Amino acid sequence: MEKIFKHVAIIGLGLIGGSLARAIRERSLADKITGYGRSLERMEKAHALGLVDEFYIGFEKGLEDVDLVIAGTPVRTIVQKTREVIPYLRSGTVVTDVGSVKGGIVKEIETHVPEDIFFIGGHPIAGTENSGFESSMAELFENRVCVLTPTENSDQQSLTRLEQFWKMVGSRVIYMDVKTHDRVFAAISHLPHMVAFSLVNAIVDMKGFEGNILQYSAGGLKDFTRIAASDTVMWRDIALMNKDNIICALDCFENSLATLKDAILREDEKSIEELFKKSRDTRKGL
Amino acid sequence: MEKIFKHVAIIGLGLIGGSLARAIRERSLADKITGYGRSLERMEKAHALGLVDEFYIGFEKGLEDVDLVIAGTPVRTIVQKTREVIPYLRSGTVVTDVGSVKGGIVKEIETHVPEDIFFIGGHPIAGTENSGFESSMAELFENRVCVLTPTENSDQQSLTRLEQFWKMVGSRVIYMDVKTHDRVFAAISHLPHMVAFSLVNAIVDMKGFEGNILQYSAGGLKDFTRIAASDTVMWRDIALMNKDNIICALDCFENSLATLKDAILREDEKSIEELFKKSRDTRKGL
Repeated sequence: MEKIFKHVAIIGLGLIGGSLARAIRERSLADKITGYGRSLERMEKAHALGLVDEFYIGFEKGLEDVDLVIAGTPVRTIVQKTREVIPYLRSGTVVTDVGSVKGGIVKEIETHVPEDIFFIGGHPIAGTENSGFESSMAELFENRVCVLTPTENSDQQSLTRLEQFWKMVGSRVIYMDVKTHDRVFAAISHLPHMVAFSLVNAIVDMKGFEGNILQYSAGGLKDFTRIAASDTVMWRDIALMNKDNIICALDCFENSLATLKDAILREDEKSIEELFKKSRDTRKGL
Repeated sequence: MEKIFKHVAIIGLGLIGGSLARAIRERSLADKITGYGRSLERMEKAHALGLVDEFYIGFEKGLEDVDLVIAGTPVRTIVQKTREVIPYLRSGTVVTDVGSVKGGIVKEIETHVPEDIFFIGGHPIAGTENSGFESSMAELFENRVCVLTPTENSDQQSLTRLEQFWKMVGSRVIYMDVKTHDRVFAAISHLPHMVAFSLVNAIVDMKGFEGNILQYSAGGLKDFTRIAASDTVMWRDIALMNKDNIICALDCFENSLATLKDAILREDEKSIEELFKKSRDTRKGL
């Protein structure tokens, strides 16, 4: 079977970029993978691990026959990196990204790509609290959703090829428009991270305890706060890039918490139980 | 080796009571286990599963030669159930509970037990989001902490026996005074549950989405909201019994969240990253 993309370039070999490299290798989806990064030492290590066939620090080399460029850098640098890469791409190259925010990326890049370079935004719903290619794994995308955010400007054939590619690494592909994507993920991903970060900080800041009280926490809290160990630069950038939707989600959450707090203050047994029941029923339904 | 307690009575065969029954059985820690519950049907099922040797609905029978009574009912009924059971106990019997709140239980019961019945409050830090003895398991307490909350009135020999008992089901025993216990667990257990319940409710209440957006959630949110499926009556009772400490913990958390929200609103990169880093470093240190 002919390969959808013969030569793939990955910019930024973090957890996602590194895992894509592994998945492409393991499933023989491309003949060649070229990696781009800022640190020569890191890229040498990625090469030694067999993640990439070639690697470069600058975009001047290695891009001439690339079919697919995947921008895997933190969300706030995706636009810049993509702009830098464009001049070196041949006609027909597909460009995508894996950023958790799509507003401020998709429209911006679309204004910069020439007509014969095809950009489509992407967001694989995959990841762990770990970062860096040392934590990467070929199976990261298996049975996960990958959201693609095509616009009215998107090239249909490139979209089909990109969708095929994500299916070949094991994902289920869904389409969302950019605005819906950012609102949905503010709610189900960005908000929970903000909450987890704030929860851990709140517990640390509580005064008057001897020693670290987190030592007594059972499985519940550990699962709960696992995402509070996530990459700080990645999440800082997400918080800034999806600011309005995250603030809106935080407002909703604050209201929800205030409702419960008020019910506890009033010792309103029935309301407390109903609030817990609503949550329990929702969670059990997942 | 002589058994520490030959005949154990368990009031309330939920997840904790049922798991204690299984652990006692599996490790041959007692000659006999008698169960007490409200529902004949449920008790018959527990008996059929081999959790108890005998079972009763009322306390009039089966308690005459019991050495250890474990109150495993929801926290708000522990005092009442313990008071009801006392008249049927012989001199020297040890009474304990497994409630997640100790204020309003320990002092209250101490005023009601005669001098020759020995009460010591307990709280095994174990459990899952599931409830009922159907989810019980003998190994639930292995490598977990069990907090005992003795007071100046506690009988030293009974405390030693109870501590031995918890060690024999696999737990590490620590002592806390009642007030510290309730403040610590408001922070590391009750607060995270209130947050998880409120988070799931906030997401459900968000308007303007087609379908249930929780369908897109990846591993992160699922781990995070697992505890939002916890038993509603148990948690309603904890919220009411530990009200002041939980409100105080909620205040701390609201402040922590407001600090982050403010930093995002101001697009204060440095503060956002510092808040995330503080949380990440704490969580990584666990």
